[in-house]
Parts: sequence; structure tokens; C-alpha cells
Amino acid sequence: MSDPNCVFCRIASGQIPATILFQDENLLAFRDIAPQAPTHIVLIPRAHFSGLNDLTPERAGLVGEIALVAKDLAAGEGLAASGWRLVSNAGPDAGQTVFHLHFHLLGGRPMGGRMA
Amino acid sequence: MSDPNCVFCRIASGQIPATILFQDENLLAFRDIAPQAPTHIVLIPRAHFSGLNDLTPERAGLVGEIALVAKDLAAGEGLAASGWRLVSNAGPDAGQTVFHLHFHLLGGRPMGGRMA
Repeated sequence: MSDPNCVFCRIASGQIPATILFQDENLLAFRDIAPQAPTHIVLIPRAHFSGLNDLTPERAGLVGEIALVAKDLAAGEGLAASGWRLVSNAGPDAGQTVFHLHFHLLGGRPMGGRMA
Repeated sequence: MSDPNCVFCRIASGQIPATILFQDENLLAFRDIAPQAPTHIVLIPRAHFSGLNDLTPERAGLVGEIALVAKDLAAGEGLAASGWRLVSNAGPDAGQTVFHLHFHLLGGRPMGGRMA
């Protein structure tokens, strides 16, 4: 459920500090320490699994919860009208660096239509 | 539930042709006609709503279903090990062009860590 070597598990347990914007029993959201846009928030489940490649029907609900929290955080950041992007990277070609499922919420400037 | 002026609703109803890779009672997945990567698949719910900004708790489960289908399609495209990216754009700054919720599955080449 938790991996002591995982940086996101350590943020979730409070061992590594982060600017936490949301948390409940299933999820956590915090600001990315290397933001790619004026708003760059990372959303994770507390449960540790590597990412979308390890998604199961039992875990799929977490992705829906993440999307709902992202919508609310985007609104709170003033991005509902201007726009924002939700991204999850799975594996090396996508540049995934932390192998704990996470989504990026990006916004605050025009990003264009390129996604890859 | 369906918008006669929406291109994705028209794909879902069969009025506009597409290379459909998956469909069930809730979802549809088809190849993007302007691919940004060797694999570029669009995943949508059949139900019409503008995107993540209009997500509700009742609709959130669809996002989990989309992520699960994306995982299976990515595996089928041979991307499970090499990597892939799942993206949803909400609003103008993100370059959203069709206002029917959709996720992009991108893979087949190194995309780097830039997401915006």
C-alpha cells in the first residue's frame, strides 16, 4: 500500500514536505516542485502503484476522483475559463520519473494544442 | 445526452466515420485523424458534456473507465513497456477544440518530460 522508497508515498505520509492543496482518505494534491506552467499541481492516490499500466478495475475509481479534485482545484486557481490540462505519464517514452500513479494539472498560460 | 452539432457525438452515432478501436455502452475509442505521435487514440464517453470543467460526481466514473480502456489499448498497441501519455484538455489555454469530454492516448516515440 505504501513504499518507503517512493517520494510520493513519503509526501503522503508527511515525511517529505510539500505544498499540499487537497487531501482526503484516498487522495493528495500538492504543487509540483519543478513547475512547467504557472499552475502545476500533482494529484496522487495514497495507495502506491506504479501508474496507469497497473490500473485495475478496483483502482479505476481513484482516477475519477482525481479528475473531480483536479476540476475543483483548477477552478480554485482561476483556470475554469482560461483552460487547463490533465496529464498522466506511463513509462519511459512519456518521461515518467516517479512510479506512483499521478496526474499533472497544468494551466495559467496558453499551452497550444501540442501534447507530445 | 447527444449534440447533433458535435463531431464526437456524430462519430459515436456512426454519422461520421472513424477507425473505432473500442466501444461499449458508455465509451468509444478511435484513432485521431491528426495524430501527434505514432499512436494517437481519442477516448470519449457517449454522453455529451463539454469536458473536465463539466465533470460531476455522477460522471466521474466515466473517467476511470476511460483510463482502464486506455491502459488496455496501450497494451494492445505495444506501449505498455515503452510508455504512453494520457491527456485531457479543458478550455482555450489547453488547446481544446472539441467540446465533448475526451482523453488523448499518445505513444510510440520518446515524448520527453514536457507536458505543456
